[in-house]
Amino acid sequence: MTLFRQEIGEQPEVAERVLAEAAGRVAEVAAAIRAADPAGLVIAARGSSDHAAVYAKYLFEGRNGLPVALAAPSLFTLYRSPPDLRRFCVLAISQAGASTDIVEVVAEARRQGSLTVAVTNDPASPLAGQARHVVELGTGPERSVPATKTYTASLLVMAMLSQALRPEPALAAALERVPEALRAAIAVEGELEPLVGALSGATRLAVLGRGHNLATALEVGLKLMEAAYLVTEARSVADFLHGPIAIVEPGFPVLLLEAAGPAAGEMAKLAGELRRRRARVLTVGDGAPPDGEPGVRLATGLPEVLTPLPLAVAGQLLTAGLAAARGIDPDRPRGLRKVTISR
Amino acid sequence: MTLFRQEIGEQPEVAERVLAEAAGRVAEVAAAIRAADPAGLVIAARGSSDHAAVYAKYLFEGRNGLPVALAAPSLFTLYRSPPDLRRFCVLAISQAGASTDIVEVVAEARRQGSLTVAVTNDPASPLAGQARHVVELGTGPERSVPATKTYTASLLVMAMLSQALRPEPALAAALERVPEALRAAIAVEGELEPLVGALSGATRLAVLGRGHNLATALEVGLKLMEAAYLVTEARSVADFLHGPIAIVEPGFPVLLLEAAGPAAGEMAKLAGELRRRRARVLTVGDGAPPDGEPGVRLATGLPEVLTPLPLAVAGQLLTAGLAAARGIDPDRPRGLRKVTISR
Repeated sequence: MTLFRQEIGEQPEVAERVLAEAAGRVAEVAAAIRAADPAGLVIAARGSSDHAAVYAKYLFEGRNGLPVALAAPSLFTLYRSPPDLRRFCVLAISQAGASTDIVEVVAEARRQGSLTVAVTNDPASPLAGQARHVVELGTGPERSVPATKTYTASLLVMAMLSQALRPEPALAAALERVPEALRAAIAVEGELEPLVGALSGATRLAVLGRGHNLATALEVGLKLMEAAYLVTEARSVADFLHGPIAIVEPGFPVLLLEAAGPAAGEMAKLAGELRRRRARVLTVGDGAPPDGEPGVRLATGLPEVLTPLPLAVAGQLLTAGLAAARGIDPDRPRGLRKVTISR
Repeated sequence: MTLFRQEIGEQPEVAERVLAEAAGRVAEVAAAIRAADPAGLVIAARGSSDHAAVYAKYLFEGRNGLPVALAAPSLFTLYRSPPDLRRFCVLAISQAGASTDIVEVVAEARRQGSLTVAVTNDPASPLAGQARHVVELGTGPERSVPATKTYTASLLVMAMLSQALRPEPALAAALERVPEALRAAIAVEGELEPLVGALSGATRLAVLGRGHNLATALEVGLKLMEAAYLVTEARSVADFLHGPIAIVEPGFPVLLLEAAGPAAGEMAKLAGELRRRRARVLTVGDGAPPDGEPGVRLATGLPEVLTPLPLAVAGQLLTAGLAAARGIDPDRPRGLRKVTISR
């Protein structure tokens, strides 16, 4: 078994551990944010962690009323003209905590006197050293180059922080069901075979989500680039309609990541439009795929806001299946190292 | 001549008009922003206008110290749980001013009492009706579906607003040189032939920029999807290294959009890495391409912060050339209408 596949399988246990062990630090961070009363958050991250930041944006804006800006690290490093962060809380997400540019965003925020928070797998990292508060992911070492368990653990910490800032009994109960939902997602692995088959000869793919699952589309799109070498166009449904849909010709594969909730109607409408154009529609989500169309029904049992966790796991498994079908070693994709030290 | 190509050619004159006619409104907006002293800006936009928003983010954060969050419109429409915008100025960019979701962001900001600004080609649009301040682009009707002149006009208004908020004599002089730089960009059309040739059989392409030209990469990537049906992976150099670079195999085409400035060293390093992997490297920018490699030197004569205007024009011309080579009508790409009324 590849490390990639093995680490995908660890995610239910990791989620249990995060729920048990990160709660204390998350509560401290929530108290600090409440005390600072920032106008909004600035989140700094790269790669998969940046998709966790997109997840956090929808969560903190939608549940907590806090506007979220994603940091442009080059302004802190190459250009040396960072924005005025004094009315913001600056939160960094980085599994290794070693990306020089993310560390520099937090260092600058600290110099400006902003509240700073690091979410990282390595509490001894340079990033953790710069931040006032550190939430350790505690996933254990992640050895496969494409992130899996650190991604879902980061989402979970974000959801716990949103909940700590505005507690809701229903969300508290749903958070406890996340490990079980991840187990259920892993259990659909065999049902992904028709999707693997449909994509085994593909070179291009659109991956679409909406709302809370925009982050999932971005992350699954990245996984499929990293470990299956597909060029993916990952977008929100709304943005896809604003131009990129022109790439869809008959047979063009489109993966829809769906969850029951306010966005479902729009996804269904788009799916109809894609079928009219004779695209090859593949679905993973809460609904049952139409007869004869490759798709996996993933009854997550979670409120929409938490569905990005099991949906990401299904996307990881699809990637693992495709990597195997194409003879790619997902643990060591060409040209990637585990820690990207970028300026 | 297609409308698309014709409207590309109108951009120098449009820029002259924007410089002359929008200055008064821009000064009023700058005064209103100064008086409101917001913690940051929230910018709402879709499609090409969203790339103008990315440009604005780097500009306002880097030159004016104002953090910029890009709005997630679905939180205002589908989810009906918008963030607290009271400490922000909300700016919308939309050529037609008719996208329901963008209008709703501004309407909500207005209900919350935020300062609101619309940048649009239609001062009688629903968007303009909601905003406290309206800056008219005044490009004349844009009839080709893929945006051209409304995009560069939006960038120019953003640069004028940044300058009005923090005047600098060197930037004032450079702004006056924009129309001439756009003329020079149009003049390289013939030199783009080798790039058109290199891409005429391609189905996939990576388009990379950095810093101020991340917006250009996103916009050129979108143009090539809309009007040449290429699936493009458009990223910043830093993000490309965090995963997507795995898609690069020998012969894989990569378009680099370069400008002299702090980001140039990193672009050059990446170009070297891509050549080592035997990618097909194509360049458009301030530097001369290596012997035998398809590329166009575009001596913009502009400070880096304004290079996204002529570089976008070069990308539009490349798109027009490819559309012609592939027999695609760029005025009416399949499946697109001029105004996308999305929720």
